[in-house]
Amino acid sequence: MDGTGLETYRYEALAAELEGMVERGILCPGMRAPSLRRAARGAGVSLSTALLAYRLLEDRGVLEARPKSGFYVTDRRDRTRPRPAPSRPPEEARTVTLDGGVADMLDLASNPAFAPLGCAIPDARLLAAGGLDRFLARAARVHGQGYNIYTERRGDAALRRELSRRALRHGHGLAPDDIVLTCGCTEALFLALKASTRPGDVVAIESPTYFGLLQILEGLSLRAYELPTHPERGIDPEALSRALVRGGIAACLLSSSFNNPLGCLTPDAIKREIAGILSHHGIPLIEDDIYGDIHFGMERPRPFAALAPGADILTCGSFSKTVAPGYRVGWLAAPGRIEAVLRAKFGVTLCGPALPQKACADFLSTGGYDNHLRRVRRVFAETVARMSQAIDRSFPEDTKVTDPKGGFVLWLELPRGLDSRVLYQAAIRERICFAPGPLFTATDRYRNCLRLSCGHTWDRGLERSVERLGELAREMME
Amino acid sequence: MDGTGLETYRYEALAAELEGMVERGILCPGMRAPSLRRAARGAGVSLSTALLAYRLLEDRGVLEARPKSGFYVTDRRDRTRPRPAPSRPPEEARTVTLDGGVADMLDLASNPAFAPLGCAIPDARLLAAGGLDRFLARAARVHGQGYNIYTERRGDAALRRELSRRALRHGHGLAPDDIVLTCGCTEALFLALKASTRPGDVVAIESPTYFGLLQILEGLSLRAYELPTHPERGIDPEALSRALVRGGIAACLLSSSFNNPLGCLTPDAIKREIAGILSHHGIPLIEDDIYGDIHFGMERPRPFAALAPGADILTCGSFSKTVAPGYRVGWLAAPGRIEAVLRAKFGVTLCGPALPQKACADFLSTGGYDNHLRRVRRVFAETVARMSQAIDRSFPEDTKVTDPKGGFVLWLELPRGLDSRVLYQAAIRERICFAPGPLFTATDRYRNCLRLSCGHTWDRGLERSVERLGELAREMME
Repeated sequence: MDGTGLETYRYEALAAELEGMVERGILCPGMRAPSLRRAARGAGVSLSTALLAYRLLEDRGVLEARPKSGFYVTDRRDRTRPRPAPSRPPEEARTVTLDGGVADMLDLASNPAFAPLGCAIPDARLLAAGGLDRFLARAARVHGQGYNIYTERRGDAALRRELSRRALRHGHGLAPDDIVLTCGCTEALFLALKASTRPGDVVAIESPTYFGLLQILEGLSLRAYELPTHPERGIDPEALSRALVRGGIAACLLSSSFNNPLGCLTPDAIKREIAGILSHHGIPLIEDDIYGDIHFGMERPRPFAALAPGADILTCGSFSKTVAPGYRVGWLAAPGRIEAVLRAKFGVTLCGPALPQKACADFLSTGGYDNHLRRVRRVFAETVARMSQAIDRSFPEDTKVTDPKGGFVLWLELPRGLDSRVLYQAAIRERICFAPGPLFTATDRYRNCLRLSCGHTWDRGLERSVERLGELAREMME
Repeated sequence: MDGTGLETYRYEALAAELEGMVERGILCPGMRAPSLRRAARGAGVSLSTALLAYRLLEDRGVLEARPKSGFYVTDRRDRTRPRPAPSRPPEEARTVTLDGGVADMLDLASNPAFAPLGCAIPDARLLAAGGLDRFLARAARVHGQGYNIYTERRGDAALRRELSRRALRHGHGLAPDDIVLTCGCTEALFLALKASTRPGDVVAIESPTYFGLLQILEGLSLRAYELPTHPERGIDPEALSRALVRGGIAACLLSSSFNNPLGCLTPDAIKREIAGILSHHGIPLIEDDIYGDIHFGMERPRPFAALAPGADILTCGSFSKTVAPGYRVGWLAAPGRIEAVLRAKFGVTLCGPALPQKACADFLSTGGYDNHLRRVRRVFAETVARMSQAIDRSFPEDTKVTDPKGGFVLWLELPRGLDSRVLYQAAIRERICFAPGPLFTATDRYRNCLRLSCGHTWDRGLERSVERLGELAREMME
């Protein structure tokens, strides 16, 4: 083979590799493709060879070039299927009172006899390989006695240092002493709200939003002001601005990225705008960054706090979606409000378990967390892509589905008139669990919506469950 | 040796053994001695031989017989030193607002450079021998993957079954499904209050009481009604009755046994009376049984719930004082209010860490928890006895000290005019930490009081610290 022949071979091989990644769902529709430089380095070819490969994929309709932004995976589905419309909740505060539906759903969702479409919990088999348990066993053997104490008030110092280092990577400057370790993201959100609101206050949130958040608000006697939310871009800054001008809102609580259940990703510029509006009104922002590490695009999206340094922002995170739901290790970064947070924590859980925190610290510093993240991101992205296809095949014609840029849930909008709670009853009889739409709001909405979890490796069983669910929905239309 | 000689030898040996236990603080003044039957069986002698030994000790003034009740260790200290007087807090509800004193004290209390008289935390070296860490290492190796999940809503079922079995031993009938596992006793108390009160409500409590409890009340916007409390018998049932008749009290929260800081033990008859008064008024009782397993007497005292079955009682417990402060495994038994508790928990911590719960379950079922308890009880009883003696030797003449029947704290009443917060500042300069009296109330009281922790094995270092503290108090009188 002469030089030219080798070159031909190389660019075709790179193109085939990239196309395979798209087919396997590793690169998803709408996702930014690796930069030319990165692709060239990864394949060991020159920049011009990589460009040849990208042009070839553009010709084939696999990638599309966007000016000044690079190459993106063509979203062919967009051309055939509409996305759910932006939400338009009533512009007023609502008292949060949830019925027992969540508890029932959770009980079924953790029952292994049911298809795992209900809870946004990743498959334990997928996560355990991360090796965290080995670190826990080691910590118990090595440190047991020294760690059988109440931790420092903020939690294990080594873990807080690791978290501070990682935050810095995506531009979030954060001192270890600004971090408090918590019992999962739930306690982080609870403490953040406790430290920035009083009973009866109104909190502006996304709509739809995670039902657990609604229960936290209810427990703290807080009222919810739901904001119009775009399924791809997040909340509408103008609507937020209107609400703040009208007054009466004490805090705003938003997903940093990949809102549960929409999976939306707010562009940096809009995040900055939102942070600016809140600062202008002197309103604290609580952000839930629990899904930030599960990005399908090349780069981890930045939390609000990284884009608006110095603003009054409390950032919540956790290992529950990426490594260890069973460890209950989360954190709250709250510069400027740390004493209020610690005081609240003392009156709720005192402190967290010492050895699991130590195991997480060791795992972050030496356990290949990044490798682990790459692996689970691929699995989630593939399940999201495959489940979307299965929904296309089996659900009623006019079903709309989100196109999440990260996380592992899909939000479906069924044709008007279909009631997801009726579908739920039918599905439960067939041992299929999912989360009906009305759980995700304090208003009376989303009856024809539902959330499916994509936290498990795609297999024939999951596929059959989704297809059967689609059939049940079709039958309800007859 | 003929039969008579052997008999002589045996009763003297048994008497010497019992006297040694009194001297070493294993049997403490005021404590009931083992029954004749038990002592006879333990020493392998006849009942009549055991009786001879007990009569001998009675002659020597070591034991005293009480009609229909058995033999008790003579409380010789009672004759030389008065106990603190029963408290008489104002008969009204108070808003709880604590200053930062607790946080400062906690930071110093966990600093190993300071003498550990501050926090009521047992010595890690004392507890780690229990072997719980080995169970955790094993659980992580064996169960890791299967346990990397959110637990059932109530927490690990095996641990709840073990707790139910143990409760039955001291007469507390309790279904595993009436138990919710929590992040230590703090979350148990928080959830119990959350499930039985609303913000602004008044809760009747002991006085003095654990400062952590006051912080929980503050966090829940609850007001405190402090009840007169006898340092040996607990709260005054008549005062409780008066307060309830006057109205406005929503719940009552009491120690089951060995109130922190007084160490008092309410007799069963009075416990029944208190439960009856509360039932009569339809007021729930939350009991904190965290110290129940650390009894210096032969029998574990029974919680209120065991004495008043069917009453509206929520019982809180934890392993933090006996095995593992670092594990943060506690529980709340709340028959009749379980759904309210679970709902509250979902909005605070979601669920607890799975592997530490599993390790506790294995430890209870196979790890010799009872042996472990016997050992730590002996250590705590000895430290309490030795520290009392050191206080007698070194503190100002009129210092009064409690005579706890369990737990591991002493409450001191210094001569009037001495301010424990001033003493605290002087002690901190010499690296001695303790808890000043005003931390234990929401009223403005107990300035001349303080609490010392006896959670460590008695040694020369502890002795010197107590003696030095006594000297500092004496110097303040000059």
